[in-house]
Amino acid sequence: MRTMMVVKIGGADGNDADNVLVDLARRKDYVLVHGGSKEVDRLAEALGRPPRFLTSPSGVVSRYTDEETMEVFTMALAGKMNTQLVARLQALGARAIGLSGADGGLLLGRRKAAVRAVDGGRVLLVKDDRSGTLEDVNDDLVRLLLSNGYVPVISPPGVTPDGELINVDADRVASKVAVALHADALLLFTNVPGLLREPADPASLIPEIPREQLPFFMNFAYGRMKKKLIAAKEALEGGVPQVVIASSQVPDPVERALSGLGTVIR
Amino acid sequence: MRTMMVVKIGGADGNDADNVLVDLARRKDYVLVHGGSKEVDRLAEALGRPPRFLTSPSGVVSRYTDEETMEVFTMALAGKMNTQLVARLQALGARAIGLSGADGGLLLGRRKAAVRAVDGGRVLLVKDDRSGTLEDVNDDLVRLLLSNGYVPVISPPGVTPDGELINVDADRVASKVAVALHADALLLFTNVPGLLREPADPASLIPEIPREQLPFFMNFAYGRMKKKLIAAKEALEGGVPQVVIASSQVPDPVERALSGLGTVIR
Repeated sequence: MRTMMVVKIGGADGNDADNVLVDLARRKDYVLVHGGSKEVDRLAEALGRPPRFLTSPSGVVSRYTDEETMEVFTMALAGKMNTQLVARLQALGARAIGLSGADGGLLLGRRKAAVRAVDGGRVLLVKDDRSGTLEDVNDDLVRLLLSNGYVPVISPPGVTPDGELINVDADRVASKVAVALHADALLLFTNVPGLLREPADPASLIPEIPREQLPFFMNFAYGRMKKKLIAAKEALEGGVPQVVIASSQVPDPVERALSGLGTVIR
Repeated sequence: MRTMMVVKIGGADGNDADNVLVDLARRKDYVLVHGGSKEVDRLAEALGRPPRFLTSPSGVVSRYTDEETMEVFTMALAGKMNTQLVARLQALGARAIGLSGADGGLLLGRRKAAVRAVDGGRVLLVKDDRSGTLEDVNDDLVRLLLSNGYVPVISPPGVTPDGELINVDADRVASKVAVALHADALLLFTNVPGLLREPADPASLIPEIPREQLPFFMNFAYGRMKKKLIAAKEALEGGVPQVVIASSQVPDPVERALSGLGTVIR
């Protein structure tokens, strides 16, 4: 297969997905992965079920996804966002196909038996959370679509072999897909210019991280950025030569990220 | 292409989709199309936006779909129902792929400029309704998936060339897909045994309708059944040799419908 990249866009407020879509529409060498946690939050609020989060003992925050929350999650991501992104790409002339992790067993994983969460200093064991661990990507399906001129637009949730939907992190989905496709690059778009030394100061961008120094730079990661660095680490370990964390709030964000603007990890 | 059928399941209360899925899982010669109006109603109610309907001068009732309702419609159908059906088929061993009408321009149509609706004896012109007319099916995409062992699970909405999502009736989607694929049969599952002379009496089933008598039998159609007969008419006119309207509330509903149990129109 020719040169290939995996592009991940988020759903946090301020992310300008459309810049990325406009830039991607002229290309055919990519798979798009998206999250959309803000959209899930909005729908949950509108349904009178405010989102709840779990903090792991190591400080990683994740959504508490019980059965009803999984429905909300699926509707917001695989329903609204995925369909809107696909329709927009189609209107821009791309032949986009939306896929959730359930489609063709695309994102196959297992549900975590229990999740450890910190609450007021104590560590609790949460058992009805539908968080999962991604184990396998049906890359044959992705290749089939790409080789026939279609662009896959991939969204969580993932699925277990028993057909249970599981919450898998979109950054890590992007990383796993990049590894499965032997992609040349993984671009993780966000609403800041990259990894910052000072979260509030865009001028404190860290332009490059040699892969062996990733554990050190993990100290600068806050909130969602921590997951991006974990995803970057997994992609590099899986053979993806470079990962770029970059802003989507500029024109031509894909071209810019490919030219090294952002935080380049390799 | 080998023998092929299009199977449509609904989302009205009492429809037992799972009977159909279990029966389909052992087959590979089908495309599944689903609606899910009850699911859309439920989500709309939960969001504090009770569903509204329009009645055309000829008596056909359709959902009033403004922009916000289109989001609800997409989340309930392409999000929740489609993903759950796909996950269930996967768990049953089928390689199912969910597709909304936006995917690859699968269900391409145009938005109706205005919809005529009867309100208290007057005929109104409704302009912000996102109802559409289906004009083209990307059957190449469906064939690509089928010929590679995947089973397409298709859901409204449709899409315009400008990327606007449109509300298209799932029965008529099924009919249009059957025509585009030159299917041998279209099975329309519902929660009654078929077209009934007396809506309340299952024993009044009309077992067979010769196609030339469809206009006469249209008189027996009430509510959603009217749309099924319109879909049947369009399928027959498009070259599909037979349409069966049958109950999903029995074991082996697909086998039964194929053996002629239900209302057979040919």
